[in-house]
Amino acid sequence: MAKSITISDYLINKLYEAGVRHVFGIPGDFVLNFFKKLEESKLKLVNVCDEQGAGYAADAYARVNGLGVVCVTYCVGGLKVANTTAQAYAEESPVVVISGAPGIREREKNPLLHHKVKDFDTQKKIFEQLTVASTVIDDPQTAFEEIDRVLHAVMQHKRPGYIEIPRDMVLEKGISRHRSHVTQVQVDRDALQEAIEESTAMINAAKKPVVIAGVEIQRFGLHDLLLKFIEKTKIPAASTLLGKSVISERHPSFIGVYEGAIGRQDVLQRVESADCLILLGALLTDIDLGLFTARLNQKITIYAASEKVSIRYHQYDGVDLKSFMQALVNADIHLHTNEKPYHAQVTGTFVPKRNTKITVKRLFEKLNTVITDDTVVIADVGDALFGAADLCIHSKTEFLSPAYYASLGFSVPASIGVQMANPALRPLVIVGDGAFQMTGMELTTVVRYKLNPIIVLLNNNGYGTERPILDGSFNDIHSWNYSRIPEISGSGYGFVVETEEEFDDAITKACRQKDSFNIIEVKLDNYDFSPALIRMTSCMAKQVRK
Amino acid sequence: MAKSITISDYLINKLYEAGVRHVFGIPGDFVLNFFKKLEESKLKLVNVCDEQGAGYAADAYARVNGLGVVCVTYCVGGLKVANTTAQAYAEESPVVVISGAPGIREREKNPLLHHKVKDFDTQKKIFEQLTVASTVIDDPQTAFEEIDRVLHAVMQHKRPGYIEIPRDMVLEKGISRHRSHVTQVQVDRDALQEAIEESTAMINAAKKPVVIAGVEIQRFGLHDLLLKFIEKTKIPAASTLLGKSVISERHPSFIGVYEGAIGRQDVLQRVESADCLILLGALLTDIDLGLFTARLNQKITIYAASEKVSIRYHQYDGVDLKSFMQALVNADIHLHTNEKPYHAQVTGTFVPKRNTKITVKRLFEKLNTVITDDTVVIADVGDALFGAADLCIHSKTEFLSPAYYASLGFSVPASIGVQMANPALRPLVIVGDGAFQMTGMELTTVVRYKLNPIIVLLNNNGYGTERPILDGSFNDIHSWNYSRIPEISGSGYGFVVETEEEFDDAITKACRQKDSFNIIEVKLDNYDFSPALIRMTSCMAKQVRK
Repeated sequence: MAKSITISDYLINKLYEAGVRHVFGIPGDFVLNFFKKLEESKLKLVNVCDEQGAGYAADAYARVNGLGVVCVTYCVGGLKVANTTAQAYAEESPVVVISGAPGIREREKNPLLHHKVKDFDTQKKIFEQLTVASTVIDDPQTAFEEIDRVLHAVMQHKRPGYIEIPRDMVLEKGISRHRSHVTQVQVDRDALQEAIEESTAMINAAKKPVVIAGVEIQRFGLHDLLLKFIEKTKIPAASTLLGKSVISERHPSFIGVYEGAIGRQDVLQRVESADCLILLGALLTDIDLGLFTARLNQKITIYAASEKVSIRYHQYDGVDLKSFMQALVNADIHLHTNEKPYHAQVTGTFVPKRNTKITVKRLFEKLNTVITDDTVVIADVGDALFGAADLCIHSKTEFLSPAYYASLGFSVPASIGVQMANPALRPLVIVGDGAFQMTGMELTTVVRYKLNPIIVLLNNNGYGTERPILDGSFNDIHSWNYSRIPEISGSGYGFVVETEEEFDDAITKACRQKDSFNIIEVKLDNYDFSPALIRMTSCMAKQVRK
Repeated sequence: MAKSITISDYLINKLYEAGVRHVFGIPGDFVLNFFKKLEESKLKLVNVCDEQGAGYAADAYARVNGLGVVCVTYCVGGLKVANTTAQAYAEESPVVVISGAPGIREREKNPLLHHKVKDFDTQKKIFEQLTVASTVIDDPQTAFEEIDRVLHAVMQHKRPGYIEIPRDMVLEKGISRHRSHVTQVQVDRDALQEAIEESTAMINAAKKPVVIAGVEIQRFGLHDLLLKFIEKTKIPAASTLLGKSVISERHPSFIGVYEGAIGRQDVLQRVESADCLILLGALLTDIDLGLFTARLNQKITIYAASEKVSIRYHQYDGVDLKSFMQALVNADIHLHTNEKPYHAQVTGTFVPKRNTKITVKRLFEKLNTVITDDTVVIADVGDALFGAADLCIHSKTEFLSPAYYASLGFSVPASIGVQMANPALRPLVIVGDGAFQMTGMELTTVVRYKLNPIIVLLNNNGYGTERPILDGSFNDIHSWNYSRIPEISGSGYGFVVETEEEFDDAITKACRQKDSFNIIEVKLDNYDFSPALIRMTSCMAKQVRK
């Protein structure tokens, strides 16, 4: 029987065992004693400006590290991360939200304690809507089991969980009992065998099969299986936008990001002319399906994801993504050699044209030349994302973006989470002015922790994605002098550029200046959009005007 | 029968009729067509940097104007105002949250549309926890009734409501039917009469009665009744902290803000030596009760608030606050003249000491001399609030603070809401560095709309309120060069001060410079706290260490 320890120590140890090394958050009186425990622990606390920033940073950390933690106070902290937790849920990012709360003994007679909304369980009820598992640690007898239950669910589903610790429970000793066995999902071997036999037959009968790899490859750590499958069979592979970079985009079997009619034509043609579609770990979101312009014929589709495995029009229960992919790798699938290898088309050179205003298109052409093996591209929502779809990412998991939930303001705080998770990576943040104004001042946190992202700020004076859908003064933004933020933060390098030469020069300097962040404000025409954005928004406009 | 109009026009008209002139928000594709309708309407759209700022601004607007509106897109916008809506709920501020959403016709087959969390009703379920009434406008047949129902509940309870408009409903015409009568609360005349008779007897038998007026006096517009009662009876009156400024603090019957052992000793002595307590519109929150150090004897208490009327240990059902106060004003209550009038003790002079570091105490002494009839003091959470408790506010409703829910970051966006609601007021914002870093960049919105608040930023390099409770590196904040924000925003005046003379000089200039905002960073010692904060946090520390 394990020696009895405090509930907070138990939770901290469990997080450490699961690979967590950093906790993002802001203290408050109901969580102060837990912060003190964190400070004294092996975990490193990362203080940010606003809880929203902590939520985004923890989400990015989770995507790179495999598990992230945000720690906040009751309601005034917790409800500020409702949105970032929703994003982690929608995009399958395993984030644990730890919230302080009034002590159980303080709650008697239901007093109006500060930070309370309706009832003491208001915040818990809200997080039930945003997580796969949630608990209030209100009893030392069950505390350890409850912590195990939530952490297990987070790891299993790669979605957020919620642990609320009333402050009088932090130093209580939990009771170590024979633990209830955490339910392990049992694979139905017969179903798996049938699914694999059927898949093998379909793939072997096909002349032009194609793989579409999605974000769950990254979330569930299945890169190696995917690579084995592709290299063994030589079947070409596309990725979704949310799944961008689940395989190195310089791999000879990689054909590009498939986004229906919104993406590149050559990718569309190859995918939509396939006679067998193998979708692995792909969420079928509207953005990944090019706002439903994707033409994926279900009659020829093998679909395997964490929550569903189906072939053509029938489903297999009891088959999980990992088992399916393992079995697929070992199946007797023919070599498909009737196709020439694809080549990353893009790492070319960029020669700036003299006295020429920079455009979105040319900006991304330049960015493609500066990406190295240690670059992680973090794209915020908008043209920062759509334009970035065709950047050539070298390795796995080095492209991060909220490409489904699409919440603005992710990228700058995400760069903090990424560099904490892997200091060897240097973030290249691509962000629009609208998104930047929401969370960009977390650059002061970047300075506090001596990180060094490069921020490319696409300033088109407004919510550019919305202008082609429906324009009005509400899409205008009051411009900041973004390049002067280093004067506020006390460190960093600022640039303002308008021409190709200026941008070329600034990004070159930024790559060299590694002792702090660099922010490059790129002044764009208000109506300069990437071709992808134009295709995207013309679909969106039809919805709005319906 | 009314001519049929679109659902959006109906909602906009109803808001206008209720006195709304401004809507705070940020657009997104699911709410774009409603934004277009707003732009074309008589309401003025106020775009801010982040939805959090819009939520706070709408809350402040509601406190001054009587009704406020924040308009956002689905989930990525809505969930960012979960916290500000919670504050409006807790502190009884009538804010209408309008959210766009995917069209009802787009929801068939439950596709993964961007911004969706679990299900299409996730956001609705969350706002049920944060509002008094909520609706999804999914049927033109019931749209008008549903809008009426939510707006009526907001006005009745002075708490937030939630209206979600799927985008394919915005331009649909609603059906005007015989409306279901909105339930009017009926006053129980007999109960009212008995309550008033009992109250009258208690007050007349008392030698030293005292009134404690709370925030509901402001929210329910009962200032005049309160004043009539006090002036007719000459009973002295204190206010709670959340209710600060419900009566002019220069009124001869005003004795000060009562906060139990945390507040001023003379106020405590007068209140706790009373032989009859008349609590009008006061929420009994922990902060208002000086963290339960308040000694209010229930045996001598008449308690009237919007949700409860009780005398000593018994309750009266069917009696509302307004009817009770009206009847009390007309009751036969003796004149209480055995007390000398109180005088606002504070509007004195301030002579800066030479070469003397400024302290929190001296800073507030100086601020007291610059408050004029058109000053509205907005105090953020922390010493900004506790220190401000003894400022002398001239008129009603000219002190705003989240003194119960206590969410950091309210004050700067609140100044936008206040000046939109009443351009004759000039906000004096008092804010700590921690709170400022959360939402302070909304000063760029201030510039956009040509407003002119004065920001006094108490920079003690951290979460000062928490240091005396439990200190650690987590209470430290990376300092910004706050006074240089005008360089980012393109307008405004910045100051950094450390001494009494510098502060005196800066605030004098700030009062004169009315064409933009002024921000004065006051460099304080990290451990310089107001006496009120020290008393407060020593109570809090006991809770944390329990």
